Amino acid sequence: MKNSIKSLVAICMMAWLMPVAALAQQALWGGSKIVSPEIHDDNTVTFRLQAPKAVKVQVTGDFLSEGVADLVENKEGVWEYKTPQPLAPELYSYTFLVDGLKMNDPNNVYMIRDVVTVTNVFIIGGERADLYKVNKVPHGTVAKVWYDSPSLGLSRRLTVYTPAGYETSGKRYPVFYLLHGMGGDENAWSELGRATQILDNLIAQGKAEPMIVVMTNGNAALEATPGESSLGWEAQPTFQLPKTMEGSFEAHFPEVVKFIDKHYRTKAGKKFRAIAGLSMGGFHSMHISKQYPDMFNYVGLFSAAILPGRDAKSPVYEDLEGKLAVQFAKRPALYWIGIGKTDFLYKANEEYRKLLDAKGYPYEYFENEDGHIWRNWRIYLSEFVPRLFK
Amino acid sequence: MKNSIKSLVAICMMAWLMPVAALAQQALWGGSKIVSPEIHDDNTVTFRLQAPKAVKVQVTGDFLSEGVADLVENKEGVWEYKTPQPLAPELYSYTFLVDGLKMNDPNNVYMIRDVVTVTNVFIIGGERADLYKVNKVPHGTVAKVWYDSPSLGLSRRLTVYTPAGYETSGKRYPVFYLLHGMGGDENAWSELGRATQILDNLIAQGKAEPMIVVMTNGNAALEATPGESSLGWEAQPTFQLPKTMEGSFEAHFPEVVKFIDKHYRTKAGKKFRAIAGLSMGGFHSMHISKQYPDMFNYVGLFSAAILPGRDAKSPVYEDLEGKLAVQFAKRPALYWIGIGKTDFLYKANEEYRKLLDAKGYPYEYFENEDGHIWRNWRIYLSEFVPRLFK
Repeated sequence: MKNSIKSLVAICMMAWLMPVAALAQQALWGGSKIVSPEIHDDNTVTFRLQAPKAVKVQVTGDFLSEGVADLVENKEGVWEYKTPQPLAPELYSYTFLVDGLKMNDPNNVYMIRDVVTVTNVFIIGGERADLYKVNKVPHGTVAKVWYDSPSLGLSRRLTVYTPAGYETSGKRYPVFYLLHGMGGDENAWSELGRATQILDNLIAQGKAEPMIVVMTNGNAALEATPGESSLGWEAQPTFQLPKTMEGSFEAHFPEVVKFIDKHYRTKAGKKFRAIAGLSMGGFHSMHISKQYPDMFNYVGLFSAAILPGRDAKSPVYEDLEGKLAVQFAKRPALYWIGIGKTDFLYKANEEYRKLLDAKGYPYEYFENEDGHIWRNWRIYLSEFVPRLFK
Repeated sequence: MKNSIKSLVAICMMAWLMPVAALAQQALWGGSKIVSPEIHDDNTVTFRLQAPKAVKVQVTGDFLSEGVADLVENKEGVWEYKTPQPLAPELYSYTFLVDGLKMNDPNNVYMIRDVVTVTNVFIIGGERADLYKVNKVPHGTVAKVWYDSPSLGLSRRLTVYTPAGYETSGKRYPVFYLLHGMGGDENAWSELGRATQILDNLIAQGKAEPMIVVMTNGNAALEATPGESSLGWEAQPTFQLPKTMEGSFEAHFPEVVKFIDKHYRTKAGKKFRAIAGLSMGGFHSMHISKQYPDMFNYVGLFSAAILPGRDAKSPVYEDLEGKLAVQFAKRPALYWIGIGKTDFLYKANEEYRKLLDAKGYPYEYFENEDGHIWRNWRIYLSEFVPRLFK
């Protein structure tokens, strides 16, 4: 009886799979058992692609010093490349080039979009990279929330992280506003930036205070990340967005803070607010924090774009030095600058630090290798967050 | 002065893009201006792929009656296929086959994963398909939330939709529990099922009551959707999961309800609770609703798997008829069954309806074309939701 039920279930299970859309069938039944990427115990990694008709298969990724490596074909038409050295702990991205045509790894469903480019991803654990993993720790809630901006004339989407326990603790929490760079959106920090995992892990380790993190969309002309707005799926993402770095996002920021203070159990007031951003988001954080000097006690500039605004006439960009004088006279608890040695914005940041030094405005400075890349922004986030609200 | 600032900004903008990872540069600067898919005014659609070295390029998708169509190459190495007929309003998926190798459309960043298969997607608007679009209506909040399940011994992830206005209304809301099928997870209904958009739009049109929607993960051995659990990115999704349809998910369901009633402003009590699911989720909904006959007033079986459970000894699957008698004696407000004419589960559902008929248990029945596909589940969701909590 038991066996016959088991057989019936097995048959039913097979029957279940058959009517699934043709595409799925193909992957399920026609698909190979290829493992790619395979992370070996010593942290070398093998990439594989079944492509029997291909003439040349390459892998391109941020772990390759030359940027690209050739795969070699075996008798079954499976191409393979193994890294000659173990990879250091990090989140890496890659894609295949098949006879020059970029394609994602069909054996790895994990992909992240960076502006218009979708790449496969994997993590080599250990050291700081363990912060980027989902670990068995209490998890915060990540919500996609819409707020109305009267000044921008739009309903707009936010990502809001509330720490584990928020829903039932009855407590109030400090708020950290975390801003993306050009081409990014309200999804960038939680996807490319692993902000959810970094916060979960740092809080669980007792290294960061439980806090709310608000990830805005800094493109003032847009409602939301591509695909989640009324522009629909016809609109593909682009760098060439209107209304960035021309003052309107910065000017509207109190609308965001007001919304968050109304909708969440926040500790309101400057003492309990932080703002930081990468690249364009660093530019935004710099201008917002000096434009509204009573709003943020902690400021982080990650590879910040220290540039003139697009619309130099915006009141937001007027009188930089006068506004900085007001901001620093109010003694912010932390003004933090992080940049990589080869960042194309290094020189602009150096000039800005000279200005701060000349005025005697205190700041913390963190300099490391490499340039304008997400690896650095994850590092800066994990350095900045433990310094907040202590 | 203004012009020189503009030039400086332009130069800075270009400089910004250059240090971005090599992959992004390639797409930004080396990439073509190809539009794919292009939805024409008459709802025909053109697909394009630049692949000058390819011998054969095909598109495979759920809008093709033959399942696959050949693209034709032009002089610039761009392959093209235009649908001979306009497509009916619907959410469609597709992928390219380049010399037999499946690849996603590099000019369309919108993709959805269905178990192990990632496909590109697009929407032809109009009629019911407008419910699947993000429209300019008030938007609910979608949150990824973790709850502890003592009986399963796991912290587990949920998707929770709260309707627009929830945060500040002070009101209590009814709750609809919405369950996925085999191979799915807590992301399936909000991604493949467009549940967020369907709810936003039906509520905005006054056709559905504002409600909380809770989308669970029905794989009792798992914490979360692939990639969001402590299994990490090494674990690729699979159909072959342990602890599905063997009673433990169904048995633990009161833990979910208790969590939701504690963490959200719910209208607690049977009168204000609904449960529905597709395929395996229909199986779960059937068993949960009869196992806990005082819990749900509205029940929806969408292409439900009317099958024996894997573990026939689970108390959940014992005495089906006796438990149905108790459930229907308590007169649920709605017992709704939807299935497509060519569904491989049609006959099993027919048998089940005969049982209900023989006992005189009332239910609503919705039958339409096609089979065991997401197109039908979106339709069933949009039919079911307006019937709730009225």
